[in-house]
Amino acid sequence: MSKKVVTLSGGVGGAKLVQGLSHVVAGADLIVACNTGDDFDHLGLRVCPDIDSVLYALGGLSDQERGWGRRDETWTFMAALKGIGGPDWFNLGDGDLATHVVRTDALRQGKSLSDVTAALAQGMGVKANVLPMSDDPVATIVQTENGDLEFQQYFVGQQCKPEVTGFVFENIADARPQAQILAALDSNPRAAIIAPSNPYVSVNPILDLPGMRAAMAASKSPIVAVSPIIGGQAVKGPAAKMMAELGKDVSVLGIAQHYQGLINGLVIDEQDAQLAQEIEGMGIATCVTPTLMSDVQSKKILAEVTLDFAERLAT
Amino acid sequence: MSKKVVTLSGGVGGAKLVQGLSHVVAGADLIVACNTGDDFDHLGLRVCPDIDSVLYALGGLSDQERGWGRRDETWTFMAALKGIGGPDWFNLGDGDLATHVVRTDALRQGKSLSDVTAALAQGMGVKANVLPMSDDPVATIVQTENGDLEFQQYFVGQQCKPEVTGFVFENIADARPQAQILAALDSNPRAAIIAPSNPYVSVNPILDLPGMRAAMAASKSPIVAVSPIIGGQAVKGPAAKMMAELGKDVSVLGIAQHYQGLINGLVIDEQDAQLAQEIEGMGIATCVTPTLMSDVQSKKILAEVTLDFAERLAT
Repeated sequence: MSKKVVTLSGGVGGAKLVQGLSHVVAGADLIVACNTGDDFDHLGLRVCPDIDSVLYALGGLSDQERGWGRRDETWTFMAALKGIGGPDWFNLGDGDLATHVVRTDALRQGKSLSDVTAALAQGMGVKANVLPMSDDPVATIVQTENGDLEFQQYFVGQQCKPEVTGFVFENIADARPQAQILAALDSNPRAAIIAPSNPYVSVNPILDLPGMRAAMAASKSPIVAVSPIIGGQAVKGPAAKMMAELGKDVSVLGIAQHYQGLINGLVIDEQDAQLAQEIEGMGIATCVTPTLMSDVQSKKILAEVTLDFAERLAT
Repeated sequence: MSKKVVTLSGGVGGAKLVQGLSHVVAGADLIVACNTGDDFDHLGLRVCPDIDSVLYALGGLSDQERGWGRRDETWTFMAALKGIGGPDWFNLGDGDLATHVVRTDALRQGKSLSDVTAALAQGMGVKANVLPMSDDPVATIVQTENGDLEFQQYFVGQQCKPEVTGFVFENIADARPQAQILAALDSNPRAAIIAPSNPYVSVNPILDLPGMRAAMAASKSPIVAVSPIIGGQAVKGPAAKMMAELGKDVSVLGIAQHYQGLINGLVIDEQDAQLAQEIEGMGIATCVTPTLMSDVQSKKILAEVTLDFAERLAT
């Protein structure tokens, strides 16, 4: 068994737990597999929202009040872009642009997204091993009552309003999981943790990579998820709305059903304690604890509790 | 004879006269042929400093105090870029970035620099017809005692310090002058004006385009230059330093010699009035007037005086 901890993460919610984990797992032993299904090209720039949310969180650069993007951000680029009639539906902060410009330039020079992400992480003083789920591009398409929408068109452009009927991860059949993620799973890490990210559009793109579920199943490590649903609601984002539209149980039970067969344990909030027994009945161990991460301390405690829970499940 | 006025311009100094001309020449009758020899790719973005100086001046977006770039500019991008160890030798303002990003994206989509420039001009409310000297890339190389330097490496990177021995305009033999510039010259415009820009690195790249001098010579229009040298000094930039290093007369006489055979008239400053007779002796008419452009009024007056002078030279 290695000292590593593998975490599957989407954007803001996942990044909070990852930030907590970085306080309890040393440096590069923390492997973060970031969803890249949300990545897209905007104005010729490659934007990777989930990788950046994780990097900014770990680099201490996140804006706490806005809840996304960088702190001390300015918006002069957007004002100038609007001034010349450019597309202003997707906000790019001035500091955030440095990440996109440097990444795009390096990718055009033939570097892999993994290499680019490692260089950005180093530049931001991030010690954890932050990795894209794959170096091969995968694009999440949200199927809705209004037709298929590219993820950012759904998420930002239409503010998650259209009713969701399903999801397609374009090119996923040809995408290989990032090699270091597979190697980390193969090392039998202390734990594989599914962060409290959207199960459909943040975690599923990672799990649906060819060979990814098999690699997790083959690992002798405990696999635990932290529920993104608390008291029937998502802390942030469209997870609960999507679950309802897809006819799922909008509760930790729905989350348990979603990950059933993959996870050994589920961390649920105290508000949902009454559902623990039913989840246990599904063959999933539960850990009941406060899961709302409002500050560094609560992130760190949830990370510790989650890791302890996973290690208790290790056989 | 057409109503058009064709102006050959470099960056900041040229842009001032162009701004003045925009007050006395209606809309698209003002044709501005901008030097593109200074253009370069930085961080994967196509930067066109002279076109942008002209656009910002005409769009009322220039910073007056700093003397270059946009007013109300912020520098968060540069701070973030430096933070992640990116190259910080060339300053890109946050608002300025919108221009570079939009242009680069459009060029990558196959649009010509002329089309991109027209779209940017429209976005900034610029009525004049601002054109790149060519849609084919030309790169100014400054030959120095320290070897050949790309223009921005010389100009910004090494702050014009190395002694200059000559210039090369890469790819110029294969570059065609922008078609609308040639058409405007062929229409026998009211005047062809060489703005008070650096003769070596701003005006020569335009003049040295294959067919450009011939098109100017074939035009029946008066050709007048405004001296960038006042009292033996350049108002801004390395023109005087370059003239000295190349063994030229650092004065309006040196400017007259530089353009001899091409221009019909030279506008010189009152400080240089005593040299007018010698210039006239070279077969170049002179117009002695205040040429320092410190505000909108002085730009407008110099533009009027220059145009009147040209029209007096028309045969």
